[in-house]
Amino acid sequence: MKLKQFQSYLKSNNIDLVFLIHPDPNIIYFTQMKPSFALLLITASSAELYLSKLDLPPKVKGISVTFLQKDWEKRLADPKIKKIAVNKLTLSLQFAEKLKKLYPNAELVDVSSTLNELRAQKTPVEIQKITKACSITSQAFDALANRFSLQKFKTERDVAFFLEKFIREHDAELAFPTIVASGKNSATPHHVTSSAKLKPGFLQLDFGACYQQYCSDMSRSLYIGKPTKAEEEHYQLLHAAQLAPIKEVAANKPFTELDKISRKHLGKYAAYFIHSLGHGVGVEIHEAPAFSQEAKQMIKPNHIFTIEPGIYFPGKYGIRIEDTLLFNGKAKILTTASKELLSLK
Amino acid sequence: MKLKQFQSYLKSNNIDLVFLIHPDPNIIYFTQMKPSFALLLITASSAELYLSKLDLPPKVKGISVTFLQKDWEKRLADPKIKKIAVNKLTLSLQFAEKLKKLYPNAELVDVSSTLNELRAQKTPVEIQKITKACSITSQAFDALANRFSLQKFKTERDVAFFLEKFIREHDAELAFPTIVASGKNSATPHHVTSSAKLKPGFLQLDFGACYQQYCSDMSRSLYIGKPTKAEEEHYQLLHAAQLAPIKEVAANKPFTELDKISRKHLGKYAAYFIHSLGHGVGVEIHEAPAFSQEAKQMIKPNHIFTIEPGIYFPGKYGIRIEDTLLFNGKAKILTTASKELLSLK
Repeated sequence: MKLKQFQSYLKSNNIDLVFLIHPDPNIIYFTQMKPSFALLLITASSAELYLSKLDLPPKVKGISVTFLQKDWEKRLADPKIKKIAVNKLTLSLQFAEKLKKLYPNAELVDVSSTLNELRAQKTPVEIQKITKACSITSQAFDALANRFSLQKFKTERDVAFFLEKFIREHDAELAFPTIVASGKNSATPHHVTSSAKLKPGFLQLDFGACYQQYCSDMSRSLYIGKPTKAEEEHYQLLHAAQLAPIKEVAANKPFTELDKISRKHLGKYAAYFIHSLGHGVGVEIHEAPAFSQEAKQMIKPNHIFTIEPGIYFPGKYGIRIEDTLLFNGKAKILTTASKELLSLK
Repeated sequence: MKLKQFQSYLKSNNIDLVFLIHPDPNIIYFTQMKPSFALLLITASSAELYLSKLDLPPKVKGISVTFLQKDWEKRLADPKIKKIAVNKLTLSLQFAEKLKKLYPNAELVDVSSTLNELRAQKTPVEIQKITKACSITSQAFDALANRFSLQKFKTERDVAFFLEKFIREHDAELAFPTIVASGKNSATPHHVTSSAKLKPGFLQLDFGACYQQYCSDMSRSLYIGKPTKAEEEHYQLLHAAQLAPIKEVAANKPFTELDKISRKHLGKYAAYFIHSLGHGVGVEIHEAPAFSQEAKQMIKPNHIFTIEPGIYFPGKYGIRIEDTLLFNGKAKILTTASKELLSLK
């Protein structure tokens, strides 16, 4: 991906070596594979992937591949290294201590935010892959909505399995464990899909395909039976609170602004909106840009992120509507599945 | 699980506080759930889980649950803490630095090996869960072998999907991404299951169910068509090299001994056995006991581990036979599926 751009950064910051250790999403980003175990060493002029013999070496421009030898520590140790960069978000304390021994004269700096920013603005190839992942996800939902019947789908797991089969049949993997939450279960945003019988009431889905290492993320609420007037109103309010921030997506706008717009639309129900409005999506299902107050991030070209307000009434039900979007001058919804409240039988 | 035993260790080692941070397999171990995000703080007399509001709180004896507040850092900071223990294998450098700020007067010690040892010897409940996971895995294999036909199963993914559906229909999840490798693909031990058409030759499977957070791990080689005499001989040799160490399992024997026995049986083919003989299995698919020379671990009561020799001929094919075993005075194979070389049509 943006290896050269990252290498320029290393040069201008006098970083001798970047040492990335599995598991690190940046290794997936640069190699476009998910290794069993790997080290990725990047300098201003080279990139070497040390791979487990159990994996098939990837072919990536600018990255050479060596199988990891037992004595790799001895081979890589280098007292001449003065400035070494790591990803402090994933580097374990144990490995950090090992690095200090291998590079005893090196200052250790963090490149996690640099890498996160780099990855947040997607390249054309990445946009293509995420678009494809979103398209598979949307198609899976449409297929479910078309074929649903309470005779065929008896449990949460049946629904999850249908979606997952569809995704796998379209050359993709799951971006994360599929959430299917029926009735009261939907009041827990991260409900663990179970063998619980489908019940009349809201049926909450949150799932995504991962196509060639790139994720998509989508949530839809369905209804088994006929919603009450209040339920229908809650859904329509939530839908409006999801569309409102999407309409306001614009370059250099802070993500916190979008969050405020959505909560304002929810009015008194904002108290039941207990999570963030969204997050970036890429090789990780949650990556930069972050929507939090502290992150202070703003919308930039080729950011790909979710907008996903939800309201949760403890012990009753919860609903969440989520799309994955691309910002390319304006907001483009990539998860195009219908957001009408479908009434299932 | 062994919370009280761990708390006694804390008391006798004057550890004021153990601070475990998501993602950490020890959190799964103690809480018996997979949280979205969590902190688990354990002292000699208490255990408090700080959980994301998105998750359903677990009910576990000895652990109280609090939802994580935004100002948790301020709430938890404590200059009186003198000795704090962490899991250095998973604690990120970023979080380690945060802990140093929260507990400025604390010495930071590592409890990863203590926890790994504790977890390696399974409790009766854990043995029950892993036995169940192994049974589902074996049944899935038997079902595949019974129903296999080249008309129905056209690609690696079709085979993986059949196994996964079976596992999910039996109230379990996948322990790890299913490996199905046909023909030349089997020469890569961690081949990524693809939409590749099934070809005559070896069909290598490596998969497992995860039942109530506990994993199983099993590999079997099948053959599409009729194996040559040499292929049949390679398989029988490998089978013998898998059974030989199992027969020698005994209390206090070093795992490296088992490794030697298997390699000796393989003779000149030991050069093609490019990975470890096995690993412990529990809430993690790879956990203690470790089989490596450096780990110096010995077989102890209620260890659960795999025995999985494999031989891989680059560009040709690979075969691996793997069982999950319990040591309860003698070796008990938990993955009971047939190891006959089945010839599929």
